[in-house]
Amino acid sequence: MPRVSEAHLAARREQIIEAATRCFLRNGFHQTSMQDVIKEAGLSVGAFYRYFDSKAALIKAIAGEKIGIVQATADHLLAQDPAPPLLAVIDDLLRQIDVNLTDNGTVRIAVQVWGEAVHDPEFAALISEIYGRIRGNAVALARRAQETGQLPAGADPAAVGSAIFGLIQGYILQRVLIGQVDRETYVGGVGALLQAGTGAGREDRPPPVTTA
Amino acid sequence: MPRVSEAHLAARREQIIEAATRCFLRNGFHQTSMQDVIKEAGLSVGAFYRYFDSKAALIKAIAGEKIGIVQATADHLLAQDPAPPLLAVIDDLLRQIDVNLTDNGTVRIAVQVWGEAVHDPEFAALISEIYGRIRGNAVALARRAQETGQLPAGADPAAVGSAIFGLIQGYILQRVLIGQVDRETYVGGVGALLQAGTGAGREDRPPPVTTA
Repeated sequence: MPRVSEAHLAARREQIIEAATRCFLRNGFHQTSMQDVIKEAGLSVGAFYRYFDSKAALIKAIAGEKIGIVQATADHLLAQDPAPPLLAVIDDLLRQIDVNLTDNGTVRIAVQVWGEAVHDPEFAALISEIYGRIRGNAVALARRAQETGQLPAGADPAAVGSAIFGLIQGYILQRVLIGQVDRETYVGGVGALLQAGTGAGREDRPPPVTTA
Repeated sequence: MPRVSEAHLAARREQIIEAATRCFLRNGFHQTSMQDVIKEAGLSVGAFYRYFDSKAALIKAIAGEKIGIVQATADHLLAQDPAPPLLAVIDDLLRQIDVNLTDNGTVRIAVQVWGEAVHDPEFAALISEIYGRIRGNAVALARRAQETGQLPAGADPAAVGSAIFGLIQGYILQRVLIGQVDRETYVGGVGALLQAGTGAGREDRPPPVTTA
């Protein structure tokens, strides 16, 4: 077998990942065979299997690329000084979802993987690992918001991180499955919830502070 | 064909729905065949097909039963006078999720159907119809919370309803797929977010009001 450069290997791998993404989005994970992906990638069977030996391996590679992007977004948010308002943090995270929904549709693969993970232990382990990391970032963002006085001193950052992560997952589902909500509306709704504790709607209280 | 009573038909239908639920939870939607469900239900092929002619029809029946329970919970919450605190409403809705997660596991089927709906128009239409109704209830609850001064007067109830629905969907995903969060923790995190607008964590502000 001839020696090939690292760059060539990486480009070939990327070519396969992109082909697999197109197949999964077009026909769904179950209705896509390895043959379909090989044909879409325009490779020989032998060349293909040097890179990936199963559909699960392809999903792992796609997920691995995405988690890298999510991590970069979280790192950027965590590095900002002073800490941005919580609502701006949530808005930034949802912007990242929108990019992966409209530009390349890969968020739609995530929803398919969730369905698989219900009864497939390999996918369940993958999801558990990835989402443990994403939720860890949400917890770090919650802790930072608390340190800058945006959350009650007694709040549990881990619990707030779960709720923030839940808001993001719910946004993904509503965008992918119902399609009736846009980011501005959703962030507006979250912003109103963040004001709920102020009693801002009561006539005997001062008007709400605008945070967005 | 002998005449059968309405009660008999309903009992037989329920027997099939329960058998299908067990099969889908055990092996997943795709790996379950109509033959598997017929065998699980202990019926003849002829008897079975008098009730359901496809897996999609079975999923619709399961979803139909669940939406009925969700509607009853929402009706109960909307009928309470005075309107309960928003956090108590969210807690009640999550309790309903917990019942369907631990008692019979049917929430796990919902996550599978989400995955199917990404690329199957029939499932997409089913989800869109059901979730339009559930989100409608969330919007009604948000409107009621606003009327009782729990949300800023200028908030959009439709937007808040989407955010509340998102919190519930996120809870389902974290419970089914990650399993590291419990209801008390999640509700605690949501409660802290509801306090975010109060500036309760700032030293120059009064301490947070306990709402739970």
